[in-house]
Amino acid sequence: MNFEYQNPTRIIFGAGNLSRLGEVAGGYGKKALLVTGGGSVKRSGVFGRAVASLTAAGIAYAECTGVEPNPRITSVARGAEIARKEGCDMIIALGGGSVMDASKVISAATLYDGDPWDMILHGQEHVYVPTEALPVITVPTLAATGSEANCGAVITNEETKVKSFIQIPLLYPKAAIVDPELTVSVPKDQTAYGVCDLITHVTEAYFNGSGTTPIQDRFAEGVILTAMEWGPKAIADGNDLAARTQIQWSALVALNGWVNVGTNAPYPVHMMEHTVSAYHDITHAAGLSIINPAWMRFAARTNTAKFVQFAERIFGLKATATDDLACALEGIDRFEQFLRSIDCPTRFSELGIDDALFETYATDTLKIVNDGQGNLPGIPVMSVADMVGIFRSAL
Amino acid sequence: MNFEYQNPTRIIFGAGNLSRLGEVAGGYGKKALLVTGGGSVKRSGVFGRAVASLTAAGIAYAECTGVEPNPRITSVARGAEIARKEGCDMIIALGGGSVMDASKVISAATLYDGDPWDMILHGQEHVYVPTEALPVITVPTLAATGSEANCGAVITNEETKVKSFIQIPLLYPKAAIVDPELTVSVPKDQTAYGVCDLITHVTEAYFNGSGTTPIQDRFAEGVILTAMEWGPKAIADGNDLAARTQIQWSALVALNGWVNVGTNAPYPVHMMEHTVSAYHDITHAAGLSIINPAWMRFAARTNTAKFVQFAERIFGLKATATDDLACALEGIDRFEQFLRSIDCPTRFSELGIDDALFETYATDTLKIVNDGQGNLPGIPVMSVADMVGIFRSAL
Repeated sequence: MNFEYQNPTRIIFGAGNLSRLGEVAGGYGKKALLVTGGGSVKRSGVFGRAVASLTAAGIAYAECTGVEPNPRITSVARGAEIARKEGCDMIIALGGGSVMDASKVISAATLYDGDPWDMILHGQEHVYVPTEALPVITVPTLAATGSEANCGAVITNEETKVKSFIQIPLLYPKAAIVDPELTVSVPKDQTAYGVCDLITHVTEAYFNGSGTTPIQDRFAEGVILTAMEWGPKAIADGNDLAARTQIQWSALVALNGWVNVGTNAPYPVHMMEHTVSAYHDITHAAGLSIINPAWMRFAARTNTAKFVQFAERIFGLKATATDDLACALEGIDRFEQFLRSIDCPTRFSELGIDDALFETYATDTLKIVNDGQGNLPGIPVMSVADMVGIFRSAL
Repeated sequence: MNFEYQNPTRIIFGAGNLSRLGEVAGGYGKKALLVTGGGSVKRSGVFGRAVASLTAAGIAYAECTGVEPNPRITSVARGAEIARKEGCDMIIALGGGSVMDASKVISAATLYDGDPWDMILHGQEHVYVPTEALPVITVPTLAATGSEANCGAVITNEETKVKSFIQIPLLYPKAAIVDPELTVSVPKDQTAYGVCDLITHVTEAYFNGSGTTPIQDRFAEGVILTAMEWGPKAIADGNDLAARTQIQWSALVALNGWVNVGTNAPYPVHMMEHTVSAYHDITHAAGLSIINPAWMRFAARTNTAKFVQFAERIFGLKATATDDLACALEGIDRFEQFLRSIDCPTRFSELGIDDALFETYATDTLKIVNDGQGNLPGIPVMSVADMVGIFRSAL
């Protein structure tokens, strides 16, 4: 364990805090670019309440609407253009992970004259690493990505079909107003995807980490157990504010560093999913729900002890000396059953995706990240053939 | 759950990082007040290595040595005086919790002309709440208090026998260089006290929190289980760097907010211990080790379900519907056995403390914190008689 950690984001958590947006924003600027997605925040009234809070605090705003579920670099460029033209001095992200990710990159792109795609890792490099950005305030309306309190963003280049990321301390939001009331109108399927997303954030670090992080293991298990307990309640009754609160908090801590710090883990399932969704524009978590259990069955043959720990601590199973792998696989089966129980897909065929591009996904994944020897980092590392085998097992 | 959280401290964790002190300090100032305790850092060579790193980076320093185990307000005043006279522009705390706590208060006292005791809560108020402070860098040489990455400090007024605290965001250290190598020379008893201290930080929030924080519960249990697994290894072999690493990390996360955020818990065992150690100058954790199990047996009668959860999740016990309290008490017995197994005291008589001042401790505790109705906040709230009963049960 040797690492640095600093997460400066001010977290303002709890039902009702949307009303504090104006007061909080007043600490960072005078005119906000208000970034939103497909319009659900307007239909739900959240947008109106956000604007009322800003107006009451004397904060002006311009709008960037229509950020897509897999946010595109063209939307980033458009947002930056509006921010410049309108003289915005801060960015407010009002939406889900896509809106928040796009907003972070807009915050840097506004102050950069070049092509914003320069900032996103592609061809294994960043052409440009930004050194200045407008302050960002996140107001998540979905419990899923944890983007509200971390410094990462995933962006798609729709032209080149590359979905990749930037993750640098500059992009930590200044403040995250995390109000679980904003999530009560999220439909069942998106709620379930959020649960799957947050659990996958945790399993990635858990199974691909350095192996000497017992507290991080316990924290990860705590998030998974909590999400599995409260997620189904939030799905069953969207108005269950207690359940919404726990899922919202689970999603945030799943990826703000508290769970994965020191694990130094790559996120191989995410890397594979990103290339799949770059081609098919599926919901990120739907891809994760399919690929993660398939990947787990592959990885459990190498990293059996960790999967036994997962089976024992999450599902109360008990391995005997002679059946470690059986116990590990039983844990994965139980996990997959959980995903099915909340109606997440676990096979590509459920999304109408066949095996035509399996090799393309694998080779594209390696174009973004590889270990220098043609393999995708993870435990174990994966060749193109390994990835194709995993995809095929989830057909 | 409704709270704000922001911990800006930059954590630099891992063996060998002491060598980065000069480089890190260079980001915050040119001349440091180097605060130390009784001299162990000089005997162990840590002081020399710290100075070498500062010197190599061109950072000058002045010294404030001899901060006591229960740091006194006179030491704070002395440190501030040196910092002013020597023109220091930052404070470096090289030591245990006492040194770090004193350093935080020195950082504000240096810029305050009045009596530094004004800043410490007493008579239920702060006479003065500081608004500016020099940057602080913490370099813990003991795994215990977690002071390295939080904004609290406990200070004793030796004249009035009041031991109280200040906890404000201004006092977050800018950086914490947490190098487990610095703890290998800590003797067995102090190592054990550190384990007891960090576990008590966690149990306070766990048992006195709002009751709707399932992730925080899991995180707390994770820290306790990790400390109980690795603590005895660090005690058995002080050179076991893996064990020192886990205990150092446990101590930090036990009190940097990740575990207790949102619980809104008072720390009644700490409040009671502070008054005891204000009179007897005992090691803080020795007092905690005595008072905490005694308090638990008292509190379990009210808050039985939470103590059952503790018994089940920490010790693998299983309550049946009819014996909840028995299960809860069995868990507390097991916890006390653990403390005894690492040679922590669990009775006042082991420290030569009799019942002469039990009522004084209780009434003094209420002078620092009470609920406005003459009780100490906690679950349940405690009267003077309750506290005396707890003290007596640990005689």
